[in-house]
Amino acid sequence: MNHSSLRDSAAEALRRTRAANPLIHTITNFVTVNDCANIILAAGGSPTMAHDPREVEEIAAVSQAVVLNMGAIEDLDAMILAGREAGRRGIPVVLDPVAAGASRLRRESCVKLLEQVPLTIVRGNASEIKALAVGSSSTRGVDAGGADIITEKTLPAAVQMAGDLSRRLNAVIAISGVIDVVALDGRAVWLRNGCAEMSRITGSGCMLTALLGAVAGANRGRPFEAAVAAVGMMGFAGELAQQRMRELGGGTATFRACLIDAVSMMTPDQLKGGLQIEGNE
Amino acid sequence: MNHSSLRDSAAEALRRTRAANPLIHTITNFVTVNDCANIILAAGGSPTMAHDPREVEEIAAVSQAVVLNMGAIEDLDAMILAGREAGRRGIPVVLDPVAAGASRLRRESCVKLLEQVPLTIVRGNASEIKALAVGSSSTRGVDAGGADIITEKTLPAAVQMAGDLSRRLNAVIAISGVIDVVALDGRAVWLRNGCAEMSRITGSGCMLTALLGAVAGANRGRPFEAAVAAVGMMGFAGELAQQRMRELGGGTATFRACLIDAVSMMTPDQLKGGLQIEGNE
Amino acid sequence: MNHSSLRDSAAEALRRTRAANPLIHTITNFVTVNDCANIILAAGGSPTMAHDPREVEEIAAVSQAVVLNMGAIEDLDAMILAGREAGRRGIPVVLDPVAAGASRLRRESCVKLLEQVPLTIVRGNASEIKALAVGSSSTRGVDAGGADIITEKTLPAAVQMAGDLSRRLNAVIAISGVIDVVALDGRAVWLRNGCAEMSRITGSGCMLTALLGAVAGANRGRPFEAAVAAVGMMGFAGELAQQRMRELGGGTATFRACLIDAVSMMTPDQLKGGLQIEGNE
Repeated sequence: MNHSSLRDSAAEALRRTRAANPLIHTITNFVTVNDCANIILAAGGSPTMAHDPREVEEIAAVSQAVVLNMGAIEDLDAMILAGREAGRRGIPVVLDPVAAGASRLRRESCVKLLEQVPLTIVRGNASEIKALAVGSSSTRGVDAGGADIITEKTLPAAVQMAGDLSRRLNAVIAISGVIDVVALDGRAVWLRNGCAEMSRITGSGCMLTALLGAVAGANRGRPFEAAVAAVGMMGFAGELAQQRMRELGGGTATFRACLIDAVSMMTPDQLKGGLQIEGNE
Repeated sequence: MNHSSLRDSAAEALRRTRAANPLIHTITNFVTVNDCANIILAAGGSPTMAHDPREVEEIAAVSQAVVLNMGAIEDLDAMILAGREAGRRGIPVVLDPVAAGASRLRRESCVKLLEQVPLTIVRGNASEIKALAVGSSSTRGVDAGGADIITEKTLPAAVQMAGDLSRRLNAVIAISGVIDVVALDGRAVWLRNGCAEMSRITGSGCMLTALLGAVAGANRGRPFEAAVAAVGMMGFAGELAQQRMRELGGGTATFRACLIDAVSMMTPDQLKGGLQIEGNE
Repeated sequence: MNHSSLRDSAAEALRRTRAANPLIHTITNFVTVNDCANIILAAGGSPTMAHDPREVEEIAAVSQAVVLNMGAIEDLDAMILAGREAGRRGIPVVLDPVAAGASRLRRESCVKLLEQVPLTIVRGNASEIKALAVGSSSTRGVDAGGADIITEKTLPAAVQMAGDLSRRLNAVIAISGVIDVVALDGRAVWLRNGCAEMSRITGSGCMLTALLGAVAGANRGRPFEAAVAAVGMMGFAGELAQQRMRELGGGTATFRACLIDAVSMMTPDQLKGGLQIEGNE
């Protein structure tokens, strides 16, 4: 275990993101698309949300990372085209399997996408990752909810699940929740950053996925370090935002603005100091 | 008349919403979809914005309420599928007939939806409700505007119109404006909460519709009380937000954040104290 | 040169916008559509984002301006229908050629739109305007980026390009960047308002385009003065927002709220005092 080195690499990953201004091709849902664009900009990247199948390959080809958010289920064809083009060029691809187990359409779409697109990082909550791990035969809907919260008790099982899925997909798996897990093959860490307000706004998960794209795009060949950096950055930004929201006497909308603010103002040294990483790396 | 009991039931409706965390299936327009998701979360619900016809019935079936916002006119088929599934299961359906009279497409779509989906609550401004009341033969466009503002003088006519439409649709009718009207069959109340800034941001109406879904979903079998609670909650939140915006020296974007903040922080007792209800219940 | 008269006409253009409450039919992309609606409201207009081909002609016909944002590339048919209807009625049409050179689809769509829709104002950054000026034969993608920033050195060339394109399209050309250029035939001015934070949020460009629609819609027959007013208003609002963000100790999300706030609170006299106009008018 060498978490001070992960802390260093996270700071370095953020530094590179701000310096490289990576173009992040993000195909994402209409609910939180504006937040995703703004968080990419806050981290130092440039977003493009092109999602027309007639142009996504051209756009993906000149991007530094491609982000595919299954909330935009109607854009599945565009996602596969963009993801395959990225794969051909060695451009990192980040997948968010939004509500993966909630309908037959989503289960089948996930299977299709996993078969056709090589993934670099997959991020979901515990139930979404579980839906991918269990496979398309699952018939559970949104009621997979119980599995959604990683507690001290369920942490070992979550780490195991993430590692297994990582080996199967040959990708970094990031599970977000009260405790976040990041796994790649035999490596796994968990992070205790974050706050309760993150689940009282829409977009915390989608924004983290977009942030993973930005950081991975600027740190090619280092997806595990990039994922730890992005997951930690979002969680730590949540803590700073909670504190600021309380000082201002605000509610959830204030929290949301403070969250993006915190990402936009975070320095590499601040990030290094704020990360709470544990694990068996 | 017993408005202290409506005040009590509104407080109770909010308490239940926060406790039940209802899943609100919202098919809504892309302009304000993020605000709608955030207001549902602020009230204590969980939003899902699934709108693909291939999955909306599955999603509606496990939801506590279905919200149909005609601003998403291109999703009419999905709305009808979700609404009918909700109807089969006794799940409350809330309709927002956005710009109902503004085009032939909208008039025809409204007729189709009213014929096929059993509604629990319909919310619009005066001109939208009038467009439904008058029916599809109306050829007026967006210029129905004059009818948009309920004044002391037009209040009796608005109450009458709401009651008549309520009987015809067998649903609660909520008309929002400077004065808000809520009617169910012979019952009708009006609320004097709210502020002018609500019409200087986009989404006040759509957010109220989403909030109606959240509160109705957690208070099944009590749609009139739920509607009074949600309408009053949004209006009172507007007053709190106006006050806060002025303290901060902000403009319309500050107001919008303060509005969602106020909903997220509102306690049942605060709501009870803030409601300004009158009427002939 | 008579810039005090342009300052006066800008103040007058804002005064008219607040008084006329113009209906602005905006067909725009899903990333920043909410910001566009809110900036139109902040300026005193009323937005409608109808984009279904079956109704856009009816909606355009009763609007005071039509805004076409090519970010919504999937809505090209609706844009052409709305734009042509506006043309038939003498209603101003504002075009934003988002990422005009970034894909073959966008180049071809621009050509099609320019052929079929009479334009009143075109606004883009330097590379987008360059893509239109060079025409569809260009094969450069998003990497036209170098041309994106207008510096003192490139200003004369940018003014020349804007003037040439203005004559070709018979429309006002507005190029936004560190320095903004507004040209109509032989007239050209440049504005030094604005701040760096505007490029760290999404939507600055789209919001300016929407604002151009609002101001042009309330000032028919004076598109050059309207464009100078809107471009200056957005830049000056950026300066006010930057100052306020710093006072509040906020980041990019705070800046964005302050930007819309500033537009919503700006008085004609404030605008007149804040404009930094130069040029050869």
